[in-house]
Amino acid sequence: MSTTRGRVTLPSEENFLEETKELMDRWGADAIRDSNGTKLPDEIKALDAKIYTTYFVARNHNEHAEKHMDELQQLLLMSKHNLATSSTLKIDFMDGYYKEQFIPDYNHDPKEWWEVINRTTETVIPAEDWEVDQESNLVIIKNAKEFHEYTVSFFVYAIWDGTHMYNHITNNWGDDVPHDLPFDARMPNSNIYMNEYLEQWLKDNPQTDVIRFTTFFYHFTLIFNNLGKEKFVDWFGYGASVSVPALEAFEEEMGYKLRPEDIVDKGYYNTAFRIPTKEFLDYMEFTQRFVTAEAKRLVDKVHDAGKEAMMFLGDNWIGTEPYGDHFEKIGIDAVVGSVGGGATLRMISEIPHVKYTEGRFLPYFFPDEFYEGNDPTIEAVDNWLKARRAIMRKPVDRIGYGGYLSLAYKFPKFVDYIEKVTDEFRLIYDNINGVKPYTGLKVAILNSWGKLRSWQTHMVAHALWYKQIYSYLGVLEALSGASVDVSFISFEDVKQDGVPEDVDVIINAGDADTAFSGGHEWLDPQLVSTIRKWIYNGGGFVGIGEPSAVEHGGHFFQLADALGVDKELGFSLSTDKYFVDEVDKHFIKEEVVEDYDFGEGMKNIYATKESTEIIRYSNGEVNLSSNDYGKGRAVYIAGLPYSQQNTRLLMRSLFYAAHKEEEFTKWHASNINCEVHAYLESGKYAILNNSTKEQTTLVYDGNGKSREVTLEPGQIIWEEID
Amino acid sequence: MSTTRGRVTLPSEENFLEETKELMDRWGADAIRDSNGTKLPDEIKALDAKIYTTYFVARNHNEHAEKHMDELQQLLLMSKHNLATSSTLKIDFMDGYYKEQFIPDYNHDPKEWWEVINRTTETVIPAEDWEVDQESNLVIIKNAKEFHEYTVSFFVYAIWDGTHMYNHITNNWGDDVPHDLPFDARMPNSNIYMNEYLEQWLKDNPQTDVIRFTTFFYHFTLIFNNLGKEKFVDWFGYGASVSVPALEAFEEEMGYKLRPEDIVDKGYYNTAFRIPTKEFLDYMEFTQRFVTAEAKRLVDKVHDAGKEAMMFLGDNWIGTEPYGDHFEKIGIDAVVGSVGGGATLRMISEIPHVKYTEGRFLPYFFPDEFYEGNDPTIEAVDNWLKARRAIMRKPVDRIGYGGYLSLAYKFPKFVDYIEKVTDEFRLIYDNINGVKPYTGLKVAILNSWGKLRSWQTHMVAHALWYKQIYSYLGVLEALSGASVDVSFISFEDVKQDGVPEDVDVIINAGDADTAFSGGHEWLDPQLVSTIRKWIYNGGGFVGIGEPSAVEHGGHFFQLADALGVDKELGFSLSTDKYFVDEVDKHFIKEEVVEDYDFGEGMKNIYATKESTEIIRYSNGEVNLSSNDYGKGRAVYIAGLPYSQQNTRLLMRSLFYAAHKEEEFTKWHASNINCEVHAYLESGKYAILNNSTKEQTTLVYDGNGKSREVTLEPGQIIWEEID
Repeated sequence: MSTTRGRVTLPSEENFLEETKELMDRWGADAIRDSNGTKLPDEIKALDAKIYTTYFVARNHNEHAEKHMDELQQLLLMSKHNLATSSTLKIDFMDGYYKEQFIPDYNHDPKEWWEVINRTTETVIPAEDWEVDQESNLVIIKNAKEFHEYTVSFFVYAIWDGTHMYNHITNNWGDDVPHDLPFDARMPNSNIYMNEYLEQWLKDNPQTDVIRFTTFFYHFTLIFNNLGKEKFVDWFGYGASVSVPALEAFEEEMGYKLRPEDIVDKGYYNTAFRIPTKEFLDYMEFTQRFVTAEAKRLVDKVHDAGKEAMMFLGDNWIGTEPYGDHFEKIGIDAVVGSVGGGATLRMISEIPHVKYTEGRFLPYFFPDEFYEGNDPTIEAVDNWLKARRAIMRKPVDRIGYGGYLSLAYKFPKFVDYIEKVTDEFRLIYDNINGVKPYTGLKVAILNSWGKLRSWQTHMVAHALWYKQIYSYLGVLEALSGASVDVSFISFEDVKQDGVPEDVDVIINAGDADTAFSGGHEWLDPQLVSTIRKWIYNGGGFVGIGEPSAVEHGGHFFQLADALGVDKELGFSLSTDKYFVDEVDKHFIKEEVVEDYDFGEGMKNIYATKESTEIIRYSNGEVNLSSNDYGKGRAVYIAGLPYSQQNTRLLMRSLFYAAHKEEEFTKWHASNINCEVHAYLESGKYAILNNSTKEQTTLVYDGNGKSREVTLEPGQIIWEEID
Repeated sequence: MSTTRGRVTLPSEENFLEETKELMDRWGADAIRDSNGTKLPDEIKALDAKIYTTYFVARNHNEHAEKHMDELQQLLLMSKHNLATSSTLKIDFMDGYYKEQFIPDYNHDPKEWWEVINRTTETVIPAEDWEVDQESNLVIIKNAKEFHEYTVSFFVYAIWDGTHMYNHITNNWGDDVPHDLPFDARMPNSNIYMNEYLEQWLKDNPQTDVIRFTTFFYHFTLIFNNLGKEKFVDWFGYGASVSVPALEAFEEEMGYKLRPEDIVDKGYYNTAFRIPTKEFLDYMEFTQRFVTAEAKRLVDKVHDAGKEAMMFLGDNWIGTEPYGDHFEKIGIDAVVGSVGGGATLRMISEIPHVKYTEGRFLPYFFPDEFYEGNDPTIEAVDNWLKARRAIMRKPVDRIGYGGYLSLAYKFPKFVDYIEKVTDEFRLIYDNINGVKPYTGLKVAILNSWGKLRSWQTHMVAHALWYKQIYSYLGVLEALSGASVDVSFISFEDVKQDGVPEDVDVIINAGDADTAFSGGHEWLDPQLVSTIRKWIYNGGGFVGIGEPSAVEHGGHFFQLADALGVDKELGFSLSTDKYFVDEVDKHFIKEEVVEDYDFGEGMKNIYATKESTEIIRYSNGEVNLSSNDYGKGRAVYIAGLPYSQQNTRLLMRSLFYAAHKEEEFTKWHASNINCEVHAYLESGKYAILNNSTKEQTTLVYDGNGKSREVTLEPGQIIWEEID
């Protein structure tokens, strides 16, 4: 039995009353939720706990949707590229799509709303040169140019919600469970329905304390292929918010008309890696205005019923943009999201304008992890240790779990561990909530998205690993639990307002031409000269991967002069590269105890000048370097997958870039597996062992005095500041 | 003593008469040459051998040059990038250059001929906004924009020939040896001088049979830094042909004026890796016209004197372009060049419009290789085995050596080996010269340069290794000794005339945006549709590295559809990549006996469709694949450094792409270290062991019948065709 209680949410289910009570006691839970696939029986709802009920606004209401099939959610899709081998080209535009997910929209005139594009010339084919065969779902182009490629951008209706489809297929729900039809909140009948239904529902569900919206109206883009497997997933994607009425409303509101191409974007669909166009930013703005206004209407009803409204950060979250300018308007009470590690925890815990945040921790109580012979504790430990670092900086207000509680119950070791975690969480929360942790310096992450996508850089599908992103995701993960303040600024911010005054170090991390590195944004003289001046006058800059990269004016890195390195594209092979020697000693490498790991690394980086301090050089390439530029410094790192050592390496890079080396060991642990977090206002500090082994470390206080401490695996020790 | 004689050129020197005679006998030499730093005494010139005498046209005549310092060769250089930290910026434009090599040209008005550029905006600064301080060699810019970068493009005179400088510094010739002043054949006094001097020289040197021009007028670009070390080297560079009079003549002849920027090209100086601009191609054309016309005048004089004219393919070869349209006009008798391996041998042996070609083999008889304790035979064996493959396809007519013969004489094992080589060469030559070798298929290498730079792709400094090129140079090296015909075609050729009818396979190999891959050339719909159509109708395509790469229309590889692979730039991470399984068996990998070696390889290549045959997949990337496209095929290879296995892998890729798998084992050796070359017209075939170990192989005849043969290290066996 837990000695403390609260801040913990449990899932429960039918026929599980006694065990639910037992686990509530042991984990100190004060709230109970249903999950996708479970329902809470009345006996559970009657327990002494807040009751969360999952609520779907725009799906799970087939009784409505079936009556208004013309109000189903639309998407604007692009066909495959099709090669014309003669002057007539027939395009099976649905080829590759899942016919159980989408049907073409013939309600709106294709000639008006679709676009046929010659992708070889990137020109639009006049409507008179193509026809639609609605019976066989073909677009037939005449006067096609031989061996040019053509695509069709076309509207569809979604006839199966993406998440419902995923759960349905994954869990083999079979033919008996009808497919959830997603409908569009923008459509007249649906808009009335969703409001009226909620009003009635609130009356019908007095035992519910918290309406857990999953979520509002527009699902992130999730498209399945002809085999029913995922074809396209963009957790940030606005694809499933686009409809003919939306484009009409856009034109009326924004004063100009979007082209289908503004949405399909050559098939890249404006993913977060694309440098956003003005048109797409306008569309996001337009959608946010609509979503937040309509969500507010629902949330107001919840409040009127005396209940709380919580949104799930996922599924139909598109257009809410919790870090955007419109989110506050919704008036939501809480946000809950899935915690994959430190960065995703901060993504939740930093959300402004809510009363509280809640993290859903891993593993989910599902059979893929909870099966005989497996130890789900291993994932739980890893998840907790990563998230705990971030909690030390900015806690979520609650933690919780999802899935089948009955499954978890069968794993006593797991139940024991979560008992420890929930107590530990409550102690941390009590010690630090509302108290600003000690911060060594202020870091701003600079990219095309800025604040809008705080803690959300380089993500494709929520918290999933991709070869192309892990070397950058490590930056956020390292920062999430580090003693630095982190903000997110956009190139536009810098052009408008310069670099915020309190920033010590700017980080620009990403592959060339992505929104995270910036690509053509760096062609703007205002941007590049502002950043140069800022560094030159004493600012710190840390570039990772291909920072400021766009071939222009004789550089690839537009900050090559500041960084002291550039990337060889082949054009300057004729120029001799003499600077290849590593410096013997360097502040940045003082705590390197394992092999360097730059992840995917970066090819063909070379030092452009003798003053460049090459800290790591291997295989004919600079991997890590620093350069003094006026009174400032710029550090280059080839890549930074998350690890304890790389966290330390990044921290040292930041402190070095900021010329704050002497402050690095304030509230510091010498062992890279340990970290110290100090809370000066409350007179406490914590020593963390982030590893699953016993660790001994020197612990430095705020005056740089040290003492040796040994910590158990994963231990956190609280101390009073003298 | 050699049993055969001829086709071999020896260097000789003073006080070495008897040994020269001995080595002439042993190596069967019939020609003797001087070298840089050696002179032939009369007693040697009297031997029964052709006498080559090195002749410098545009340097080594300080008696003339010192009188006409305003006729020294000019260059147009670019300063470093200079950061403006206030509105006044002083640029020390000579910073980083070697003051013993260049002096600024103040004879021509800098305001008219120089260019000051804001590299942040890529705009030219008006002449009224900058001044030159000639005393301190500064350009002073006023109204500079803060934290923009500026460069100065400025004319200099060269006061030391680059090759002379290199030899001078390397060999410590000391202060007593005056620096060779390079002068410009375009200048009036120099033009008269070089013609008159040659006339007199021809009269004064009756014993010389062959004038070995080293070479004509313009040295490849070779620039030294402030420490007297190489700063910039481009073996193809036209930098040292540019002068104010040249630009004036260009305007008159071509009808428009070049800007300095057309030459300095942001500091990349139009290296061969840059996709050539129209302006630079025009400048090359203009220079070729001048060089070939003036060279013809000299060569005519040589012929009038009853002697032969030979040019050295190097040093001042710029503007001759042996594969260009103007070379024939010179009327040169022979070309001699340094042989670094098979590709450089073919670069020499394929030169048209000459009576004979000669390869200078390695090692050069210099102390860097010929020193006590070292065995120069090792390099000689390696050089010979690589070159011999190429000789089997198209022989040079003569081989030779350079340096100090007295040094080589001290290494008896080396002397023995060269005796064997020279005999072997003569036998090969007698067996194959003028006879077309058996050829399995015809390959065209497609890039921006085409025929003009035949056998010269991906080269920076002659035959030197660079990390960025070896994975592509292997393609030429493999082809140089393979049973295929090789031609070189440009994108312009394809646009004008389509793909030549007899081509079986097109190769496009290189990094994105280089002249070898093609970059923006692939945006031309005419080009891309012609190539697509050609493949679709049965052509073969082999893409290596980043073939046809330029981000456009939703592809990075413009031939992605044909290749069945593309490169992930981050924009399509949201699209699931399902095709990752290697095929079990494949024609292309049937002779893979060692680990795959793709050299630098290529990151983030993925299969775009199920039909793609993935032959090698590692580390989340496709390294080797093939795809059927209509009746044709396209093979992708991530990189191809030279090796026996990669030669085989490339050959199989070519035959597979061409749908000629069944012809692959005609005149074939099963052991990858061996090759077979057949000469059907003369009824002979040769079996080569390209390795330094004994090898046993099956040898296939033209009907696919095989027998087993064992070869000594490096052995070549000649057989009659039944």
